[in-house]
Amino acid sequence: MAKMKAAIFLEPGRIILGEKPVPEPGPLDALIRITTTTICGTDIHILKGEYPVESGLTIGHEPVGIIEKLGSSVQGFKEGQRVIAGAITPCGHSNACQCGAWSQDGPGTRHGFKPLGGWRFGNTIDGAQAEFLLVPDAMANLAAVPDSLTDEQVLMCPDIMSTGFSGAESGHVRIGDTVAIFAQGPIGLCATAGAKLSGATTIITVDGIASRLDISRRLGASHVINFRETDPVAAIMRVTEGRGVDVAIEALGTQATFQAALEVLRPGGTLSSLGVYSGDLTIPLGPFGAGLKDLKIITTLCPGGKERMRRMMEVISSGRADLKPLVTHRYKLDEIETAYDLFAHQRDGVLKVAITP
Amino acid sequence: MAKMKAAIFLEPGRIILGEKPVPEPGPLDALIRITTTTICGTDIHILKGEYPVESGLTIGHEPVGIIEKLGSSVQGFKEGQRVIAGAITPCGHSNACQCGAWSQDGPGTRHGFKPLGGWRFGNTIDGAQAEFLLVPDAMANLAAVPDSLTDEQVLMCPDIMSTGFSGAESGHVRIGDTVAIFAQGPIGLCATAGAKLSGATTIITVDGIASRLDISRRLGASHVINFRETDPVAAIMRVTEGRGVDVAIEALGTQATFQAALEVLRPGGTLSSLGVYSGDLTIPLGPFGAGLKDLKIITTLCPGGKERMRRMMEVISSGRADLKPLVTHRYKLDEIETAYDLFAHQRDGVLKVAITP
Amino acid sequence: MAKMKAAIFLEPGRIILGEKPVPEPGPLDALIRITTTTICGTDIHILKGEYPVESGLTIGHEPVGIIEKLGSSVQGFKEGQRVIAGAITPCGHSNACQCGAWSQDGPGTRHGFKPLGGWRFGNTIDGAQAEFLLVPDAMANLAAVPDSLTDEQVLMCPDIMSTGFSGAESGHVRIGDTVAIFAQGPIGLCATAGAKLSGATTIITVDGIASRLDISRRLGASHVINFRETDPVAAIMRVTEGRGVDVAIEALGTQATFQAALEVLRPGGTLSSLGVYSGDLTIPLGPFGAGLKDLKIITTLCPGGKERMRRMMEVISSGRADLKPLVTHRYKLDEIETAYDLFAHQRDGVLKVAITP
Amino acid sequence: MAKMKAAIFLEPGRIILGEKPVPEPGPLDALIRITTTTICGTDIHILKGEYPVESGLTIGHEPVGIIEKLGSSVQGFKEGQRVIAGAITPCGHSNACQCGAWSQDGPGTRHGFKPLGGWRFGNTIDGAQAEFLLVPDAMANLAAVPDSLTDEQVLMCPDIMSTGFSGAESGHVRIGDTVAIFAQGPIGLCATAGAKLSGATTIITVDGIASRLDISRRLGASHVINFRETDPVAAIMRVTEGRGVDVAIEALGTQATFQAALEVLRPGGTLSSLGVYSGDLTIPLGPFGAGLKDLKIITTLCPGGKERMRRMMEVISSGRADLKPLVTHRYKLDEIETAYDLFAHQRDGVLKVAITP
Repeated sequence: MAKMKAAIFLEPGRIILGEKPVPEPGPLDALIRITTTTICGTDIHILKGEYPVESGLTIGHEPVGIIEKLGSSVQGFKEGQRVIAGAITPCGHSNACQCGAWSQDGPGTRHGFKPLGGWRFGNTIDGAQAEFLLVPDAMANLAAVPDSLTDEQVLMCPDIMSTGFSGAESGHVRIGDTVAIFAQGPIGLCATAGAKLSGATTIITVDGIASRLDISRRLGASHVINFRETDPVAAIMRVTEGRGVDVAIEALGTQATFQAALEVLRPGGTLSSLGVYSGDLTIPLGPFGAGLKDLKIITTLCPGGKERMRRMMEVISSGRADLKPLVTHRYKLDEIETAYDLFAHQRDGVLKVAITP
Repeated sequence: MAKMKAAIFLEPGRIILGEKPVPEPGPLDALIRITTTTICGTDIHILKGEYPVESGLTIGHEPVGIIEKLGSSVQGFKEGQRVIAGAITPCGHSNACQCGAWSQDGPGTRHGFKPLGGWRFGNTIDGAQAEFLLVPDAMANLAAVPDSLTDEQVLMCPDIMSTGFSGAESGHVRIGDTVAIFAQGPIGLCATAGAKLSGATTIITVDGIASRLDISRRLGASHVINFRETDPVAAIMRVTEGRGVDVAIEALGTQATFQAALEVLRPGGTLSSLGVYSGDLTIPLGPFGAGLKDLKIITTLCPGGKERMRRMMEVISSGRADLKPLVTHRYKLDEIETAYDLFAHQRDGVLKVAITP
Repeated sequence: MAKMKAAIFLEPGRIILGEKPVPEPGPLDALIRITTTTICGTDIHILKGEYPVESGLTIGHEPVGIIEKLGSSVQGFKEGQRVIAGAITPCGHSNACQCGAWSQDGPGTRHGFKPLGGWRFGNTIDGAQAEFLLVPDAMANLAAVPDSLTDEQVLMCPDIMSTGFSGAESGHVRIGDTVAIFAQGPIGLCATAGAKLSGATTIITVDGIASRLDISRRLGASHVINFRETDPVAAIMRVTEGRGVDVAIEALGTQATFQAALEVLRPGGTLSSLGVYSGDLTIPLGPFGAGLKDLKIITTLCPGGKERMRRMMEVISSGRADLKPLVTHRYKLDEIETAYDLFAHQRDGVLKVAITP
Repeated sequence: MAKMKAAIFLEPGRIILGEKPVPEPGPLDALIRITTTTICGTDIHILKGEYPVESGLTIGHEPVGIIEKLGSSVQGFKEGQRVIAGAITPCGHSNACQCGAWSQDGPGTRHGFKPLGGWRFGNTIDGAQAEFLLVPDAMANLAAVPDSLTDEQVLMCPDIMSTGFSGAESGHVRIGDTVAIFAQGPIGLCATAGAKLSGATTIITVDGIASRLDISRRLGASHVINFRETDPVAAIMRVTEGRGVDVAIEALGTQATFQAALEVLRPGGTLSSLGVYSGDLTIPLGPFGAGLKDLKIITTLCPGGKERMRRMMEVISSGRADLKPLVTHRYKLDEIETAYDLFAHQRDGVLKVAITP
């Protein structure tokens, strides 16, 4: 049996480069030879043991690659095609998918729902930080990459871009809206680009790292706030002359950013939450208007599926959003432990690393 | 100057029947002679000092009456007409109204928004528990009552029914949905009726008072749970065979009901919150799926305006919902202090009291 | 190879009971032993040659049956289960499905869309008027029937009920709406039930057959109009006192009903079209407000998929709609030519016939 | 009584510069001294007698000006402020407004609806091509112009821009969509800008004038088609590789453009119609999929109101759309008959003319 290299989670604190057999596709799967992948903030949660996965699992959920072998029932694709697959791989036939909750997919469950069930790569099945990847429900999840786009150009599509954009989409940002985005890491930056694409005319971004705020401006921010220098809630209320924002996007996953997002909302506004939280959240009574302020709090897990991937690639190829600045570092798969070290410690201004086997 | 009787808030613990001048309508106002009104749970919050209003204010926001006098600029109505007005009286011309946030109306403010600004009766202006009531922005807020309907039949329209129904509407209840409703006081009961009208096929209601659960069944509940006998979360998961509900409606305003509502949601479900909370809320990490469960939390303040009132009365006159069982007691305005005492202590199975001047 | 009986289209005017081999399921299919099925108005279009299908095709798209054999890749079901499948059988993995256009499914096409592509049974593959039926993409389309429901109770779910209800759903009927429904054949009657379930308070139905109008009342109509006795447009404008209706549902497929539906709409209203038209349509300038009346015309093809079927069966089992009166006649499969003759000529007050192999 | 100059419709073919008394504001009105206005294609329909208005009416519905005098009940504005008002001036308190159909406003009618009722300027009351203009329901309709914007920069907001943008908004254009826009006159050009602002990634525009197609590219078109050289339907199907577009916007008002828009739609797509039609329309059976293609046809009349105007001005001041190229000619009010002549005959590459009293 052929062997391949893979980034394997062993125990909290240890993701190592190991060896595994190259998997064999079942009837509905596709085997992808990975050409480029990356590390996500969620992988760091896994590394630290904050998000538990099984020991021995291959990590990673952002694949770009070449179809090596198709399952016997897979139609509409051919071997040798360059493809991506979303971080979330819905089956398309569960009750959850048919209810529109594609990311909460539970094909094997009694009622067809499973919390976070669409997130399989590097969570419940082996992931993309390897030489080969098995894509389940390949017909729903493989998306052909146009020749005109490089691997790095589409590397953000599977997760960061789809998630970030959904912050604006779930918040129903519309023409003329004022939007605040809390945190300008990779997801927050994509949320900024998504808010711009959705017609927001005032886009206020908040972060503590100046270089991120610079990129934020290039992606659409009209006002940037460094929270190390300025109180963001007060600053946003100043920018909006006391009105507040139509939509606040939380892109970090902390009580502080969640609460600030709530505090800057105008009555009737929407808090669109993207962050992965690690503890209970508090909704403060005042900003919540005691429940009478017609507020909405909407959480979104990265939308997946091939149509989503096609749309994300359309955005890139049309030049409507330029996410190249997000890839700041490049490593070979052999060096992935070094890459994890850099990324986990947020050294050297890292945003995203491109990993090539 | 003519005088009238009115239920006046003096200080926490004291709402008394006093005397005030009959007000004179400004150009956009209408003066209504109240024929029937009622006491709301919110009025009890005011009585207890939990929701602060100015001393000397007339309480009450649920008017049925006869137009006594129209402001000089009011068109489309005539004196002597029987009308209701919603508890919330939006002006119709603020930026909030034009954004669809009719209840967060701020006509006199810089940006046109004011938290809870549409709630004026018995909050920021004199209310309906009196012989006469001044209705602001009368053209937006007066709704003619069909002759075929009695005062008592339309008495729930201004607040309880509009609020309760909005629980189902804001939750986007649709055909075939499973819905849970926490608390079956007047608002929760109306939420039950609203869920039925919206096409829910499984409606599970929770309360601790058997007589309320009985009415709940008549209004649409397919399953009722007495939380004094059964753990409601466990019971709802049993009824739904582990799936959870599409929409959970919170109709009380406590941490316990809010949290239970969150716990019974299926992934991708909606928590529609109607309650008036009196402290910070906690969102527990697990039921919240760490922010990755595609959940929505939507709060709604009673929708007002004459079109809303017209629709509520259409529901009554079409026989699609029978809310008569909600009026359990009747008092003269002269006896309103007794009525408050009964209502505040929830004695004698009281749901709503009809007050007639 | 085992043989089975089937209703086969030969040429315009001829659907005969013939014999075919029992099909063998592919990996994603399920073979169903039909226990009850029915004839649809669309089948009569096929019979008459108005809707072309290939000679030799088995007709019918409304199956109730028992799983005889599952394809090798099908999970989540077991042989011997009683199931239904929708008239429309989306694959779940096409770009159309992932865009929400489940009925315009084109899994084998370049871009994933195909007009009417989800309608396969009795259109592009063999249908349900036979002893056995092959269900494609079985995991997306098989829906288990609760033991408490008879075959006849769920016989309307695959098409008539799902289509009729979608008339109200696509029209976004909401609480307090006034709705008119043109034609009260099986689909129109289900649209009436759907409008009621969606909260309409005034439901005006139009047909030329008194017995249908009687059933219409039982399913939710508040006003019925026999167009042979009364001009329906004038009558609807009378009932609504000149206002017009919020939503008009077209359930026949003719210029006359389409135009009448447009004429009774209030400004800003929605025409929800269910009919299968057989010629070009004219939009008259006046009722269309020269394009300035904020009107919507929305067409819907029967929604399918197992979650849709589950919801339809929930409506039946909850008692929220009683469609039993729709099954007026019963035949054995051996007598299907007689059944077609009765149904095509609309004799004996026929609404739907139950066919049992 | 003071006199003012005004462009007055006398009879088909004759709009002349005449004299009228300066009007006196009623309690809810504002009197505006016009500083800049323009001529709309609809005014040409009026000039030609294709859209009937009363003889003696002042024409024009696109005002920029200074508040001269406020009605006695108007609050929130002050004399001397520079403002615009939308072409459509909803009252804010009719049932139509409260149903969301702001442009179909019927405040004086029995049920609160009137077809096109929100369009009052130059249609049912005196319009903006004059030295002074009476703005009805001033509190709902006056929008303060930021100092940073010139009259010409906001001149498109009252009609052209609001209408054009609504083509994308009513069509629910979203990120990654392919959109076709038929006709690139002022409204079509704004629809192009609106589609870009809404996230469309492929924008295909069609016109017969090369200079308009040039501007179209600058406003967002990725592909332009000159229908004098190329068959637009065939060309669009080529560009989309046979898929068709998600949204087609009709911005002219002819059978040819309406039909082409329908023909290029993918199944499940939306035809968003902005044109003013002058005759019955035909929906061809084939492109309509016999009513089974899940298509939507949505018409929109220019959205008005002060919040809409605020949002349009936000778009301009944020630099998200540059509509300066649309103002091609400038005239004094005294020269308005010359301006009408130029505009009516579409001479000299005219798009919009700025008229200054």
